[in-house]
Amino acid sequence: MTEGLSEAGLIAVVCEACGAPRTPIGPGDDAALVIAPPRGRQVVTTDALVEGVPLVEGVHFLRAHPPEALGWKALAVNLSDVAAMGARPSAFVLSAAVPEGLPAAWWGAFARGLAACARAAGAALVGGDTVRSPGPLVLNITAWGWTEGDAVLRRDGGRAGDALMVRGNIGRSTLGLLNWLKLAESGWGVDGAVRDDALAAHLRPAPPLDAGPWALAHGASAGMDLSDGLATDLPRLAAACGLVLEVELAALPVDPVCAGLTPDERAAGGEDYGLAVLVPAEHVGAFIARGFASLGAARQPVGGERPGVLWRRHGAPTELAASAFAHFSGG
Amino acid sequence: MTEGLSEAGLIAVVCEACGAPRTPIGPGDDAALVIAPPRGRQVVTTDALVEGVPLVEGVHFLRAHPPEALGWKALAVNLSDVAAMGARPSAFVLSAAVPEGLPAAWWGAFARGLAACARAAGAALVGGDTVRSPGPLVLNITAWGWTEGDAVLRRDGGRAGDALMVRGNIGRSTLGLLNWLKLAESGWGVDGAVRDDALAAHLRPAPPLDAGPWALAHGASAGMDLSDGLATDLPRLAAACGLVLEVELAALPVDPVCAGLTPDERAAGGEDYGLAVLVPAEHVGAFIARGFASLGAARQPVGGERPGVLWRRHGAPTELAASAFAHFSGG
Repeated sequence: MTEGLSEAGLIAVVCEACGAPRTPIGPGDDAALVIAPPRGRQVVTTDALVEGVPLVEGVHFLRAHPPEALGWKALAVNLSDVAAMGARPSAFVLSAAVPEGLPAAWWGAFARGLAACARAAGAALVGGDTVRSPGPLVLNITAWGWTEGDAVLRRDGGRAGDALMVRGNIGRSTLGLLNWLKLAESGWGVDGAVRDDALAAHLRPAPPLDAGPWALAHGASAGMDLSDGLATDLPRLAAACGLVLEVELAALPVDPVCAGLTPDERAAGGEDYGLAVLVPAEHVGAFIARGFASLGAARQPVGGERPGVLWRRHGAPTELAASAFAHFSGG
Repeated sequence: MTEGLSEAGLIAVVCEACGAPRTPIGPGDDAALVIAPPRGRQVVTTDALVEGVPLVEGVHFLRAHPPEALGWKALAVNLSDVAAMGARPSAFVLSAAVPEGLPAAWWGAFARGLAACARAAGAALVGGDTVRSPGPLVLNITAWGWTEGDAVLRRDGGRAGDALMVRGNIGRSTLGLLNWLKLAESGWGVDGAVRDDALAAHLRPAPPLDAGPWALAHGASAGMDLSDGLATDLPRLAAACGLVLEVELAALPVDPVCAGLTPDERAAGGEDYGLAVLVPAEHVGAFIARGFASLGAARQPVGGERPGVLWRRHGAPTELAASAFAHFSGG
């Protein structure tokens, strides 16, 4: 089907790159066998990526996206979800709807990126499915992991008085997207290594996978993956908890890479894949020592107030600059 | 995005139809929580379906496919894989890349069929992802289940002297496909109920989900899902076991629905979603009582022979009629 690669060939390339175990632990039988740890809870997530046309809303990647980076990212965004529930990623399956004429070299590079992310995270490829697509390339990964005990890091566990804390490079991915779109105008000249830090945050994100399990074990009351940016994700966290989150834009952690962005732009940007948590006061010191930054605090809604986010700028109530949304809503 | 349905709307339709539990057990948080039973092994499989153009090889379904039947089938084929490992299906996630303009009624019917299969099998929808597709509709399901103990029904466990036994309506799906293609010529006039037995076997397959766990518990040494038909799947089973399977075409269980097909045509047809097992002699009686039919026996290869299938017709060595392959290789 694909230039120089049969369906079995497509599968072999990925299995070899990922060092997939032999059946029935991994691919090869009707289904894969997963050995569950004697205790703990399993956490499962899935994400689909569809190839599309530049700058059309809803598009996830372009064929010109460096394939090695795409392989990495397709897995990383799933593992970020698993970790944000307080679980350690353990395994994943990959399904791909592959168009005719996809270059074998593209697929090989994609597999290498996928495998690199899998190795870095300690997650094993245990199965998948490869089919032909009469349209775009569609990639789908389902990933899972295990918690140490019975608890998971839910979105709805926060309490009034908890501190709102984040870990991850807020805004870098957004800056990377801007850099990427500029490069697109000049012909998409990016190699697999991606040396620019902002570009790397967008093309090859490295979610803090240890942050979720650590936060769960050290007293966080709620947590969520920052996949769509603070401006979109924090209202979801507030709603899940039924609380008002007062957030100080000036408290965003200093990041020299993001020196060219305003706090509003950093807050509005998506695909940060950081972790937002609510932390009882007595644990805040330990979280700061672990690399979390405190952005504000949770409180009960008062009067007719609805759960949500109240933004502050150096203490004064404020709105996020609308231009930030306009810039980044397509990202 | 879709006619009358936002992305959240698409998700809500499916969650409501399937009675999906609330977060974090089901959809709604970063990932789903799955409660593992205290013992047993987990089994995971995934299958992607891509919408395509009629009669092009590699195409899985057409928009004109009755959407309720498609929802049923998309899940059933995954659950069949899970059951063929000896596990009871427990949960699944659905990812869909949905084109603009997909009618809301189509999606609603698809969700109802999915939910009907989920209820019948006792499998819960616990998550998923819905994205926009600039091309065809792409559906992907990852499903899993649990075994009672440590063992799974592998493909490679068979021993010389085992009987080859099958359960399921071999050939019905093939006949259903033929009926379906004839209907296609006259305008695809099939309603959701699908009253014709052969058509139902193709459009709305009902794999014997209890057969795998039962066979594992009652002494089967190997097993596999019959998704591609005897002619394609049995050589795979033989190769996995390193054995020669001698298969009697006249032993195919009588099925009045398939009276119009030759044994060769029934053997060559795909998508039966039955179960093939290898069974030690002392257990054969119990398997027959449970609805399995004996098709032949496994033996060691002799001389320079390679593992594979030797077909017999009323005892005499034979080849499968080539015309059967020609008819059904596109199915």
